Amino acid sequence: MSSLEPSHRDTRMDPYIDQYADRTGSMTVSAVRALFSVANRPEVVSLAGGMPNITDLPLGRLGDSFDKLVQTKGVQAMQYGSGQGEPFMREKVVDVMAEEQIRANSDDVVITCGSQQALDLVTRIFINPGDVVLCEAPSYVGALGTFNAYQAEIHHVAMDEHGLVPSAVKEAVTTLRAAGKRVKFLYTIPNFNNPTGIQQPLERRRELLAVAHELDLLVVEDNPYGLLTIEGEPLPALRSMDPDVIYLGSFSKTFAPGFRIGWVLAPHAVRERLVIAQEAAVLSPPVFSQFAITDYLDNFDWRGQIVAFRDMYRARRDAMLQGLSDHMPAAATWTRPTGGFFVWLTLPEGLDSQALLARAVSERVAYVPGNAFYADGFGSRNMRLSYCFPTPERIYEGTRRLGKVIRDELEMRATFGLPATEVPHTQVGGPAPDLS
Amino acid sequence: MSSLEPSHRDTRMDPYIDQYADRTGSMTVSAVRALFSVANRPEVVSLAGGMPNITDLPLGRLGDSFDKLVQTKGVQAMQYGSGQGEPFMREKVVDVMAEEQIRANSDDVVITCGSQQALDLVTRIFINPGDVVLCEAPSYVGALGTFNAYQAEIHHVAMDEHGLVPSAVKEAVTTLRAAGKRVKFLYTIPNFNNPTGIQQPLERRRELLAVAHELDLLVVEDNPYGLLTIEGEPLPALRSMDPDVIYLGSFSKTFAPGFRIGWVLAPHAVRERLVIAQEAAVLSPPVFSQFAITDYLDNFDWRGQIVAFRDMYRARRDAMLQGLSDHMPAAATWTRPTGGFFVWLTLPEGLDSQALLARAVSERVAYVPGNAFYADGFGSRNMRLSYCFPTPERIYEGTRRLGKVIRDELEMRATFGLPATEVPHTQVGGPAPDLS
Repeated sequence: MSSLEPSHRDTRMDPYIDQYADRTGSMTVSAVRALFSVANRPEVVSLAGGMPNITDLPLGRLGDSFDKLVQTKGVQAMQYGSGQGEPFMREKVVDVMAEEQIRANSDDVVITCGSQQALDLVTRIFINPGDVVLCEAPSYVGALGTFNAYQAEIHHVAMDEHGLVPSAVKEAVTTLRAAGKRVKFLYTIPNFNNPTGIQQPLERRRELLAVAHELDLLVVEDNPYGLLTIEGEPLPALRSMDPDVIYLGSFSKTFAPGFRIGWVLAPHAVRERLVIAQEAAVLSPPVFSQFAITDYLDNFDWRGQIVAFRDMYRARRDAMLQGLSDHMPAAATWTRPTGGFFVWLTLPEGLDSQALLARAVSERVAYVPGNAFYADGFGSRNMRLSYCFPTPERIYEGTRRLGKVIRDELEMRATFGLPATEVPHTQVGGPAPDLS
Repeated sequence: MSSLEPSHRDTRMDPYIDQYADRTGSMTVSAVRALFSVANRPEVVSLAGGMPNITDLPLGRLGDSFDKLVQTKGVQAMQYGSGQGEPFMREKVVDVMAEEQIRANSDDVVITCGSQQALDLVTRIFINPGDVVLCEAPSYVGALGTFNAYQAEIHHVAMDEHGLVPSAVKEAVTTLRAAGKRVKFLYTIPNFNNPTGIQQPLERRRELLAVAHELDLLVVEDNPYGLLTIEGEPLPALRSMDPDVIYLGSFSKTFAPGFRIGWVLAPHAVRERLVIAQEAAVLSPPVFSQFAITDYLDNFDWRGQIVAFRDMYRARRDAMLQGLSDHMPAAATWTRPTGGFFVWLTLPEGLDSQALLARAVSERVAYVPGNAFYADGFGSRNMRLSYCFPTPERIYEGTRRLGKVIRDELEMRATFGLPATEVPHTQVGGPAPDLS
């Protein structure tokens, strides 16, 4: 049976196959989605998901507060709203961004249905099929899905332990432009990059912005984790140093994702286009959610809650790092994040994270294989381990199970003398990523 | 000064103008949006908006119910959810669609951020630039905006007093295909079409589906108003007679729009694609909203509330029809809707609804000019008058003000012997729309 047969069979089963738009062909099921069903089985320790732990939110008081909200402002909160988002919500967003030293006007903010939709709208207004988007190597799987949906060409740029390498950005842009490509923007997660957990230091940020300025390269900064720093204080956002940066924010990790409220802060001309695109997409972002989040920001100690979240995630990160240190074979390496949700693990040479997943799940531990975070097949020796959702005890147990899976595999290979799998290690346009 | 100069000046003011995607050029500010600011001034009777009147919802009891919801299910309701929508919400949607005789499996439902997003996703997966979408003449301005955002070619098909004319659909498809065009789908609002208020009778629905079947033409049925019938019982949806129809539904008019929950029901293969597109667009539709609406459907008499909405809108429709009858000049004609939110008025020959708008607003009444509902410049003798939001007294007063504006204009024209404005009256591919 040829390896093409399953997709051929799928094709014949879909009577609409000839009717779809070209972009629909590049929409593929994400690894994260396929893993949701696995992650939900209670006996599995899921180190796969990116769900925040929101069990510590003050639900009793929140319920009371939303009750009052419905009774006093229900008619407005349940009505259609502005395509740009409610003015009071945009003002609150400006306050939240000030925590990362961003000075902005609420008129330049567009509220979105989660920051995923911010990404969708930015891509929608900038990307023609074949246009290039630069991303970190590796980068957020959901962003890659969005870029794919608009038929962008995704080019990964090398990172080191300080994040994106500015000289690699310059080399990539120069090479691509020389080849006649339109490089539309650089998409970057400078704080606790998903999936590596790496944070870009201040000096590196300055270098990156200098290169972007020199190249006349638009920068799109995605910052869902910036306030969830575990060590020290949040660093200034790229946008705080350069008003031309398009900035994406979210309440999903600092409050709760179920309201689906994110935002984009953009230069005025771009903001105009985003609002028009937003109206065609959803008319207005969820209005009730905007009232609810504003109610939370007005009546609760949201800064105190973020401090509590930091403490909670620090304990989980520590459990994961301790577990990895205790259970991983010597040849495995991993990042040591100072915030966010993720550790990026590099397997001993010869192992493939995707091939290992079925065995890991049968040992009741799950992760996301590294190649989900690359558009070009790299990452097969890597995996993303998230410490955001399970308890510290479960996280530690998960690393124990994972360590056993990896050591068993190494032992089997040694016993049977299996050759190392061919795994690509270098990135186009930059040095090999060494993220350990 | 040339008429091109303003847009030329805009161009020079936007430093990103050379960076946008091709689709961004066709995204234009909708007339409805521009009217929001006018409609919000309290002294103006707005017959422009499409906002439902939700002041009669039981806010006190809703607040209590949401309080309990947060306290008992808050951790789930505020977490990330499924890209397809929560299973319990999709089950409820199946119950709601059964009111219009649709039999469906909840697995074929995708929850969206309002039915506007259902429209966006359907367009996203089917439309390449230049593909043709057929619409009623006239059709929903928000749908035209979405089709434009994906660079569809919009072709309007003639309506008569029974809605879309099947022979005109056939003629349009045949002509367009002969010209080498790809006709991707027919977008139709069979119940109380926005903006005309016309409902398609059962026999016409059968004829339309027979033509679509004969032509192998995909039908997208948009049905936000079907349950808001003012006279008699709801008619069977197109989807109830043909499982190949893609059906768009919404809670915005039967409950409240602020939760931004709509849905699409699609054949299984299409549904698969829609879920992938949805994940790239927003990850998951608003989760808290899905819990809130399910709570409402579970714990409140939602069918009784719809009956109350019908009575309320009937009184408003009656006020509008009485007002038009009392105040309009003899040469004006208008539709007499049996449900939904809108009356479509045709001005006496020589008048232009867009030219008249500024005077109308200065007389403290607003409407949407008819050409907003056409992609091709038609509709200048028409206006959409909505009776959904103001009180019956205000609606009646609004028609009085509007009647005065129109009669004054006619009188001035008679006095000064102004020539009639050139206004196109016929539609490509069908007879002239006579909707009075």
